[in-house]
Amino acid sequence: MNRHTENDNKNVYTLTALAQLLDAELVLSNRSSITDGSDVEVTGIARLSSAESSQLSFCASAKYHADLTSTSALAVIVSPDSVEHCPVHCLVHSNPYLAFAFLSHYFNTRPAPARGIHPSAVIAPTATIGEGARIAPGVVVMDYASVGCNASIGANTVIEASASIGDNVTLMGNINIGYAVQLGNDVRIDSGTIIGSDGFGYAPNPQSDGNRWQKIAQLGSVVIGDRVEIGANTAIDRGALDNTVIADDVIIDNQVHVAHNVVIGRGTAIAGCVGIAGSSTIGKYCSFGGGVCIAGHIEIADGVTVLGMSRITGSIKKAGTYASGTGVQEVDTWRKSAVRFSQLDTMHRRIKKLESKD
Amino acid sequence: MNRHTENDNKNVYTLTALAQLLDAELVLSNRSSITDGSDVEVTGIARLSSAESSQLSFCASAKYHADLTSTSALAVIVSPDSVEHCPVHCLVHSNPYLAFAFLSHYFNTRPAPARGIHPSAVIAPTATIGEGARIAPGVVVMDYASVGCNASIGANTVIEASASIGDNVTLMGNINIGYAVQLGNDVRIDSGTIIGSDGFGYAPNPQSDGNRWQKIAQLGSVVIGDRVEIGANTAIDRGALDNTVIADDVIIDNQVHVAHNVVIGRGTAIAGCVGIAGSSTIGKYCSFGGGVCIAGHIEIADGVTVLGMSRITGSIKKAGTYASGTGVQEVDTWRKSAVRFSQLDTMHRRIKKLESKD
Amino acid sequence: MNRHTENDNKNVYTLTALAQLLDAELVLSNRSSITDGSDVEVTGIARLSSAESSQLSFCASAKYHADLTSTSALAVIVSPDSVEHCPVHCLVHSNPYLAFAFLSHYFNTRPAPARGIHPSAVIAPTATIGEGARIAPGVVVMDYASVGCNASIGANTVIEASASIGDNVTLMGNINIGYAVQLGNDVRIDSGTIIGSDGFGYAPNPQSDGNRWQKIAQLGSVVIGDRVEIGANTAIDRGALDNTVIADDVIIDNQVHVAHNVVIGRGTAIAGCVGIAGSSTIGKYCSFGGGVCIAGHIEIADGVTVLGMSRITGSIKKAGTYASGTGVQEVDTWRKSAVRFSQLDTMHRRIKKLESKD
Repeated sequence: MNRHTENDNKNVYTLTALAQLLDAELVLSNRSSITDGSDVEVTGIARLSSAESSQLSFCASAKYHADLTSTSALAVIVSPDSVEHCPVHCLVHSNPYLAFAFLSHYFNTRPAPARGIHPSAVIAPTATIGEGARIAPGVVVMDYASVGCNASIGANTVIEASASIGDNVTLMGNINIGYAVQLGNDVRIDSGTIIGSDGFGYAPNPQSDGNRWQKIAQLGSVVIGDRVEIGANTAIDRGALDNTVIADDVIIDNQVHVAHNVVIGRGTAIAGCVGIAGSSTIGKYCSFGGGVCIAGHIEIADGVTVLGMSRITGSIKKAGTYASGTGVQEVDTWRKSAVRFSQLDTMHRRIKKLESKD
Repeated sequence: MNRHTENDNKNVYTLTALAQLLDAELVLSNRSSITDGSDVEVTGIARLSSAESSQLSFCASAKYHADLTSTSALAVIVSPDSVEHCPVHCLVHSNPYLAFAFLSHYFNTRPAPARGIHPSAVIAPTATIGEGARIAPGVVVMDYASVGCNASIGANTVIEASASIGDNVTLMGNINIGYAVQLGNDVRIDSGTIIGSDGFGYAPNPQSDGNRWQKIAQLGSVVIGDRVEIGANTAIDRGALDNTVIADDVIIDNQVHVAHNVVIGRGTAIAGCVGIAGSSTIGKYCSFGGGVCIAGHIEIADGVTVLGMSRITGSIKKAGTYASGTGVQEVDTWRKSAVRFSQLDTMHRRIKKLESKD
Repeated sequence: MNRHTENDNKNVYTLTALAQLLDAELVLSNRSSITDGSDVEVTGIARLSSAESSQLSFCASAKYHADLTSTSALAVIVSPDSVEHCPVHCLVHSNPYLAFAFLSHYFNTRPAPARGIHPSAVIAPTATIGEGARIAPGVVVMDYASVGCNASIGANTVIEASASIGDNVTLMGNINIGYAVQLGNDVRIDSGTIIGSDGFGYAPNPQSDGNRWQKIAQLGSVVIGDRVEIGANTAIDRGALDNTVIADDVIIDNQVHVAHNVVIGRGTAIAGCVGIAGSSTIGKYCSFGGGVCIAGHIEIADGVTVLGMSRITGSIKKAGTYASGTGVQEVDTWRKSAVRFSQLDTMHRRIKKLESKD
């Protein structure tokens, strides 16, 4: 399933064409006089409850059957079990949500930069730009950097020297890809994100008038696998001596901080505002909710899920779901809880004393 | 009250002129020989305690009367009740803090980009630039985008295709406004902010060798009302199928993450480092302290205030002030509290047992 | 110890040369037939456990002696006490970690922009560019701004009017330095960072149809001392009336938010994702872990250390280590703890009642 399509400014498809794209069975509604899906044009995609009569929708699971039975959509992507509940044309697929995700790109009207190199871009003579690549205005590609085939580089994005950008990579605008950073194929990075900033490494340098910090040159790079997706205004630091590594199929949201020498395993999902301190190793197929902070030099096993805004200060050795923190309360009640929290050890001792007298 | 003034490199005004700008009564000090406010020049604006003898200050409430009586300012914006406490010239206004906020812009020496389009900017032939607009060096405006009258677009900012920027909008530098994003009039966005990045939407795509993530094209946009102010390095994602919506008069600080399909009601204030997960709806006139995290798919009523760094995981149905978390302690005491927190349910059972024996 | 060296694309040094750079004693291994360090070339720098036979390593303390005795490095920077444990050539230095930090820059192959001004940069005629400065493609330097000698300004970075950049400053790419911001000498700022964005200052402006916010012009600036280092995608706001001040030798990581009128004392270290609200004053030689939030209008004494993700809502008056929050738990256990937290005051009363009956 390829993800990016040319913008043809139409994005209208017949039901038959969509069925073919999905390899789905087309079941025409018997409430309709239509007998051939190639006569029916779909103009867009929408939720069951808001889809209009020329739009496609999807029913991700049986819990949406109430919405399904009352939908005004032209057609719905449904699982075999849901066909009988669908009042309109069906595109029958074993995984409707995945099918919707795949088809969504065909309705995307967002244009990519034009193929070729915009005259305002500054491309170093030693850089290589792959066939079919799209280089927007204001892009800078420095010495010995390479941009893969059919890659799309958004306006005012900077690719520093010796960086390597794979095939079919999409970089949106105002991005900075640092020296010698490697991006695999089919990577997508959203605007404002920085890959390959220096790690936060300093040696104390005592002086007669107080401590200074001697910066440690960050000699590692960032190596990013295939199909990695990174959101907006995120920053991923280069390693100090070794590399920071983001494995294949990792997805990272906005405003995330990944410090130097972090290793993130395949398929892991990291929500917005997460911070991961230096040299921590995150397993495969983990999931971190928004705002989680992960301390440095720890290991998280494969298959760990952490609820949003939790603090992880030690290694987690087995798969499972974890959390820290407290729930929200009205402020007066909360203040009392917070005060008692600071007295918890005393409370514990008082219970113990009561028990001993018991 | 218009907010932006031409930079005249002088920013000197007579007391009479300032009184007229504010529609304030000018009460000249009887300790001074001055009899006409148009003879007195004000060169700047400062706090009561640090204002110099040619500067204006303001007394926001009676609790600052001690500073007022000892001020060295040339003149002070005061409420009618404070006139008798003011040793210097008075500009009498019913709301001195608002009056100060309004006048502050007259003392701002920060220049806007020059009117017109800088020759280094890349403006698509199909884009429209309103009268009086200011387009700084390195700006990129793509196909079918429109920039309103008297808008100011800072250096190296990118406005993607079909985006619509209202009148009198100020975008600072290195900003990225995505495809089809709509900004109302009088919006101000600070540097490094991304509007219209893709939402974090993926369908699991199971493969024989593990899970991949099928990206869902984010087909919605971001619609931002009038007079919205957004800080630096913030990111607001476009909606998946519907739009992300920021109503009129919302103010958002730096480093904020607003996920796809969030709706923020009129006049709400969001401090730095807040994260709002997808599809949550925030009411009108709410206030969120710094670092608050808000889970996805919840609703926050109008008039809710949340203290800094709280975690909101469920809907809040009535106005009021809320918080979560614990207060800071010295680390040894804190460690004991934190250990006891993990034993809280056991402690509760021990209390219950003691009570039953009682 | 200067930190930045020309990229000579070789980065090969003899042991004798490195000893001279460090002012270290060179002790050749008696297991080797080498009798002159100027015959031995070092090609890189690596950890004790991964260093190859042409690489240098370092032993920061006695706790790494196991790694030291089994290292395959060509030579190791060691303290005098460690010489006897070192199986290979020694560079003897009183502070091996500092010596490593210093030498690391000699092995850095990341190129700086070329000396001089790239033809695509837009430099205002009234701006001044110091001797030996490097101005990359797409840079914008506005009126009356100054760039110091040997400063290096990365691609697509913007320096607004009247900003002052010291000597030997390194700004990476896509940075925005605001109007009249002052950077000292030897400052380094990583990509995507914004210095001098507007503080979050508004006066409520009641209207018949609800509250608006009257923006307060932010008339102060940001003043940054010498040798300050700031990471990627951080934002530091300008002051409202006075300046935001970052003293000499402060180090700040990625994704940090520093609000208006904050003052940060000399040598303080601030990790990633920290947020500091307006008008707070941070002492000298403090240390803040990742994700800490600091409320506005408070004071933190010199020498305060705060563990990651703590919330500071009040002033801290004496040096020491502080924390807040709870530790991570498996989710079922955590839910019970979190529920009991909300009942803590009741639990306390129940204990008190039991005690009174006792």
